[in-house]
Amino acid sequence: MFPHDYFQYSEATQQQLTFILIHGSWADAHFWDGVAEVLRSQGHTVYTPEYAGHGKDSNKNVTHAMITKSVVDFITKLDLCDFVLVGHSFGGTIIQKVAEQVPDRIKRLVFWNAFVLNDGESVVDEFSPQMRQGFEQLRAGSKDDTIMLPFPLFRDSFVNTATLEEAQRIYVSITPEPAKPLFEKLDLKAFYTLATPKSYIFFSKDNALPLEEGFGWHPHMSKRLGQFRLIVGDGDHFTDAYTRPAMVAHKFYEAGRD
Amino acid sequence: MFPHDYFQYSEATQQQLTFILIHGSWADAHFWDGVAEVLRSQGHTVYTPEYAGHGKDSNKNVTHAMITKSVVDFITKLDLCDFVLVGHSFGGTIIQKVAEQVPDRIKRLVFWNAFVLNDGESVVDEFSPQMRQGFEQLRAGSKDDTIMLPFPLFRDSFVNTATLEEAQRIYVSITPEPAKPLFEKLDLKAFYTLATPKSYIFFSKDNALPLEEGFGWHPHMSKRLGQFRLIVGDGDHFTDAYTRPAMVAHKFYEAGRD
Amino acid sequence: MFPHDYFQYSEATQQQLTFILIHGSWADAHFWDGVAEVLRSQGHTVYTPEYAGHGKDSNKNVTHAMITKSVVDFITKLDLCDFVLVGHSFGGTIIQKVAEQVPDRIKRLVFWNAFVLNDGESVVDEFSPQMRQGFEQLRAGSKDDTIMLPFPLFRDSFVNTATLEEAQRIYVSITPEPAKPLFEKLDLKAFYTLATPKSYIFFSKDNALPLEEGFGWHPHMSKRLGQFRLIVGDGDHFTDAYTRPAMVAHKFYEAGRD
Repeated sequence: MFPHDYFQYSEATQQQLTFILIHGSWADAHFWDGVAEVLRSQGHTVYTPEYAGHGKDSNKNVTHAMITKSVVDFITKLDLCDFVLVGHSFGGTIIQKVAEQVPDRIKRLVFWNAFVLNDGESVVDEFSPQMRQGFEQLRAGSKDDTIMLPFPLFRDSFVNTATLEEAQRIYVSITPEPAKPLFEKLDLKAFYTLATPKSYIFFSKDNALPLEEGFGWHPHMSKRLGQFRLIVGDGDHFTDAYTRPAMVAHKFYEAGRD
Repeated sequence: MFPHDYFQYSEATQQQLTFILIHGSWADAHFWDGVAEVLRSQGHTVYTPEYAGHGKDSNKNVTHAMITKSVVDFITKLDLCDFVLVGHSFGGTIIQKVAEQVPDRIKRLVFWNAFVLNDGESVVDEFSPQMRQGFEQLRAGSKDDTIMLPFPLFRDSFVNTATLEEAQRIYVSITPEPAKPLFEKLDLKAFYTLATPKSYIFFSKDNALPLEEGFGWHPHMSKRLGQFRLIVGDGDHFTDAYTRPAMVAHKFYEAGRD
Repeated sequence: MFPHDYFQYSEATQQQLTFILIHGSWADAHFWDGVAEVLRSQGHTVYTPEYAGHGKDSNKNVTHAMITKSVVDFITKLDLCDFVLVGHSFGGTIIQKVAEQVPDRIKRLVFWNAFVLNDGESVVDEFSPQMRQGFEQLRAGSKDDTIMLPFPLFRDSFVNTATLEEAQRIYVSITPEPAKPLFEKLDLKAFYTLATPKSYIFFSKDNALPLEEGFGWHPHMSKRLGQFRLIVGDGDHFTDAYTRPAMVAHKFYEAGRD
């Protein structure tokens, strides 16, 4: 056995990794500003590609395939390889589809409180009936087939651990989400044949998904990965990327390192 | 995005709130002494009404309606409004019924490892068959239709994280609990029509309820609230109100603030 | 009620206990070196008996009964009494069977992310079909009916929170595990009649068992203990015994004290 203090000095420098970070719904690539800054300060290389229907793209009439293509094109144009591909929330479905198209370029897939859909499922298939009904009403009330989260729902479900001031400042940054990709059923047969190493980061204070039996991030969706590395954090769905980016970055490192 | 250190200075002073704290079984209003002192030191207003069959009330032959009336009368006599109503354990069933009677006075309902009963349920309906049988035996063995927890059960199930000395000192303060209200089936149809904002505080080391599939505080009962704010703590069922009142108070603030 | 700072000084010295620690699969008694050293430094008495098929025993053709006999013989030869018997992982099945044979010598049983088998079950009955199939393949590939964990599986499932260097150093210490005892169905009728006090320590970052609904350490197996004391820690399955032995030792004390 080893002396008790051996390990605490064993990783003075981190293994240098390349991360590609894929945000979720009601966000754009600026969601990653804080986390990417921390990771870069530790010597890692970080990419935060924007995807169709988000950021400066004013066209909200997008499909899931267009979103996936945004990321695949970014990877192939820069000829990126041996990277850790992180998906947050809805971003989980994107990295599932990206992995099908460029599997040999990926070192490891990391799902952070992210959807891992079964073959043939849509995101809303993972909602409880009550939650799905609410989202369909929000969708029906929009003029451009988008869904916007009312502040009370966002505050209690996405940033439940934030102060009111933090919640309001984060809410200012969110924009209506194109609805269609959330309702599209995805062909994921190829994903479930991939031997790519996988990690699941579970933040245990997340309240964004319904917690009925048979729903939820972990273990309900994480277990679909088969063998995977579990990394647990104490954050919620949205707050910590803004308020504790070093904590989030460290979880990405724990999930991504060899 | 915001500078990384923005948020840590953003809440130097707390939003001032009014709390009404409703204790659970085998407790009286002194259960709140430590937590109330902390909250008051932070500028909040705190009420800890006693209810029928508890504290100095020697009459143990009470009904759930009498208990609810104690709290409603307290609120209406003092003409309290815009308060955060917190229920712990059995106190969850009380705030469900109080909310039905004075919904417009309540700012937010906070359930802390508390029962959220379905319409038509009793507290013992949320026990496993084994636990229910044990409680029925304890009830049958009493002379005044109360239930007293034997120390070994209390120590391992209610104060599992406490030292033995803490456990013994807390045990000295508990008294036999009127049995009838735990077995009464409650009409909660009106509760499930209320749009009052709700929070659920879940202390993850709680071992008071059986942990069979289909039982437990969270998410089994919390999910009945529909949309709610989740706040997680690392305490058990009873210990922290005595040993870490500032931690408990902070969780109440996180659950109650806007 | 008590002054708020009362309890923090109430346990300057620990109740002196005797521990017998039973390791799990892919380990030998040296697994306990760090934890035992901490416990002894606090005045406790600690035994870490080796059992058949492990450590210096080159005979891997062992049965579960032979393993149990190793521990029972150790206890009876030293005439040990009033001890806390801790089982980790597969060690849970051993302390179940040991408790059947020497119940009156045991002060308390402590299961640490350990199997609590139903009467008539084997360890592999608690695996998901996918995991069981993987273990059967590993078994079939061995020449001496043992199972060795490939490093990628060990790293992601047993030491998921470790650094790579920690994971590699721990991996060097593990040896092929005799397969037969993992597949043996155990008669545990007597165990389920024992009134011995019981604790379950659950480390919440453990990823060694599948997390399908209806599987897992806690509450799926812990609940079989009936009334028990729950102690929660933030470790994984294997790492902390090496890297945070004082934390593990403290959890053993919390689980074992009166």
